[in-house]
Amino acid sequence: MVFQNTEGDSFKKSEDIPIGSMQKRNIIRHRAGVDSPEEDWLAVEEPLEIRLDFEAKGERRQKSISITMRTPGHDEDLALGFLFTEGLVKAPTDIEHIGHCGPALPHLGHSNVIKVRLRNSASLDLSRLERHFYTSSSCGVCGKASIDALRSQSHFPLPANDFRIAESLLHILPELQRCEQEIFATTGGLHASTIFNSQGKILVQREDVGRHNALDKALGSLLGCQGQTSLLPLHESILLVSGRLSFELVQKAAMARIPIVLAVGAPSSLAVELAETESMTLVGFLRDGRYNIYSGAQRIQTSSKGS
Amino acid sequence: MVFQNTEGDSFKKSEDIPIGSMQKRNIIRHRAGVDSPEEDWLAVEEPLEIRLDFEAKGERRQKSISITMRTPGHDEDLALGFLFTEGLVKAPTDIEHIGHCGPALPHLGHSNVIKVRLRNSASLDLSRLERHFYTSSSCGVCGKASIDALRSQSHFPLPANDFRIAESLLHILPELQRCEQEIFATTGGLHASTIFNSQGKILVQREDVGRHNALDKALGSLLGCQGQTSLLPLHESILLVSGRLSFELVQKAAMARIPIVLAVGAPSSLAVELAETESMTLVGFLRDGRYNIYSGAQRIQTSSKGS
Repeated sequence: MVFQNTEGDSFKKSEDIPIGSMQKRNIIRHRAGVDSPEEDWLAVEEPLEIRLDFEAKGERRQKSISITMRTPGHDEDLALGFLFTEGLVKAPTDIEHIGHCGPALPHLGHSNVIKVRLRNSASLDLSRLERHFYTSSSCGVCGKASIDALRSQSHFPLPANDFRIAESLLHILPELQRCEQEIFATTGGLHASTIFNSQGKILVQREDVGRHNALDKALGSLLGCQGQTSLLPLHESILLVSGRLSFELVQKAAMARIPIVLAVGAPSSLAVELAETESMTLVGFLRDGRYNIYSGAQRIQTSSKGS
Repeated sequence: MVFQNTEGDSFKKSEDIPIGSMQKRNIIRHRAGVDSPEEDWLAVEEPLEIRLDFEAKGERRQKSISITMRTPGHDEDLALGFLFTEGLVKAPTDIEHIGHCGPALPHLGHSNVIKVRLRNSASLDLSRLERHFYTSSSCGVCGKASIDALRSQSHFPLPANDFRIAESLLHILPELQRCEQEIFATTGGLHASTIFNSQGKILVQREDVGRHNALDKALGSLLGCQGQTSLLPLHESILLVSGRLSFELVQKAAMARIPIVLAVGAPSSLAVELAETESMTLVGFLRDGRYNIYSGAQRIQTSSKGS
C-alpha cells in the first residue's frame, strides 16, 4: 500500500503500523501560493483508561488509575511501562493477566480500556495511587461519550464564521512569535503560545516547558483576576502554538472561543475533530510559506477567494 | 546583560524574562569533532501546586487540585488559565485573591504553591474536581522534598560508570530512529522513544502523541508480562527521544536504569539534575554532527579520550 505523507512524498506503509493509529482526512494544502484539496494522514489521539485489578484485605478490587491521551497501538506495553515507571510493578511475574476489556470499538477492534490483573498484589503501595493518580471513577473511555466527559463546555457563544483573516497574515505570525520567544532563544527548550488580534498584533505570549502551561498562562493573563476586566471571549483573535497541536490545546482554545488556531507542527486526529465541532479554523504545518487547513477554511482569505 | 544561547549566538537578555525561569549549567559542547567545556542556559522545570480556597456547605475549605511541572514565571496566569479552561472560573469576579503561599524559595522569591481564593464558590462543580484532578493531599511542592515525592525509586542498582560508547555511534542513532519512525513519516505528528543496545542495534522503538507514552510503551515492551522474561534493568543500553527531555522522561529512564539518555532537543533543568543524581549520562541537541553533554561525560568516548 502506498501513502503520501504531509510533505507530499510517497512511501510504503509497513505492516507494523498498529490498526487505528492513523486517520485519513480531507484537507486544503497551501503551497507556493496555491490551495489544493488533498487527503492527509493524521496521528490518532484517543483516551486510554488503565484499570488495576488487585487484591486488598483478602478481596479483589478494581481501580481506574490513569486516563491518558495516547495513539492507539501497543496498549499493553503502555500500561505495563506506566505501572513499571510508577514503581507499581517490578517484574513480569507481578502480572497475572493484561488485556482490553469492555465493548470493542469498530475502528480499533478493541476498547479504550485496558485491565491489568496483578498477582501478589498484597504488597501494592496503594498510598502511591491515592497521591499521584487521577481518581476517575465512572468514565468508560468508549469513544465520543468519553471525550465529552473529558471536555469542559465554554460559557461563551460559538465564534462567528464571518471573522476572516488574509492568508498573507498567516505567514508573518511565526516570525513574530520567534522574535518574542526570549527564553526559547536562550535555552532552546520551551513551547510558546501566542495570541494575536485580527491585525496580527501580539496580545500575549507565554513560554513553558509544558505546552498546556504556556497556553494556560496566555489565557489566564487575558482573563485577569479580581478588579480587572476580562478580555475573554476572544472572538476575533488568532492562537499560534510553536509545536504540535493536541486535543488538550484545542480544548483550551475552544473554552476561550478563539476562532483560528495555527500550529507550526502537526495536529492530532482529535484536535481536528474538536476544532470542527467547535466551528474553529485549524491550520497546521505553518512554515516556510506553506500550511495545511484541516477545518474552517472559510476564515482564511486567499487573494483568489478574497476578490 | 549579554547571554550566549545553545547555538553559541550572543543576545541580550530582556527584563521581561521571569526570575528563576532559566538556569546556568556547565556542559561539554561537541562541535566539528571538538569537545569544549562551556556554560549553557537551561529552561527551568519545577512543580507548581494549585490550591483552591472555596466555600462548601457554609465552610471555607482548601483543596489541592493540580500539580504540574512548569517553568517558573506568570504563575498567577497559569493558575487562572487552568481554572478557566477547566470550566471552574468564568470571570475575574470569581476570584477573591490569588498569590503564592508558604515559605519563599530563595531562587524564586516565592514558593511553588499558588492559592486561589474563590468568591461565590457555592456553585463550584466539585464533581469535576473529583473526576478529573490529581488528589494530592500532602505534598508541599517546596523544592527538593517535593521532587522526591513525585519520584519513584528504581528497584535496580545504579548503572555502572564503566559502560561507555564511542561518540561516533551517537551521530548514527538519530538517523536509525528516523528510518524506523513509520507513523511520524506519514503524519508528522508523533514523538518517538528508541532503546538501543551498546552496538546501536534497536531493541525497541515506539511512537505516540504523548512523549511519556512513547517511552512507557518502549519500556513496557522490554519488561514483558506473565510468562515472559524481562529485559530490565537496561544497564548497557541507550535511550534516544525525538524531542525535548523533561523530568518525567528521565525519571522513567532512571526506573529502568538506562545509563545513557540522548535527545534531539533541549533538556530541562530538572531533567539534568535528576540525571546527575541517578548517575546517568545526558546528551541534548544531538543533531547535525553536534551535541551537548549535560552530565556523565565519562561514558561518551571521543577518539582523544579513547586512546
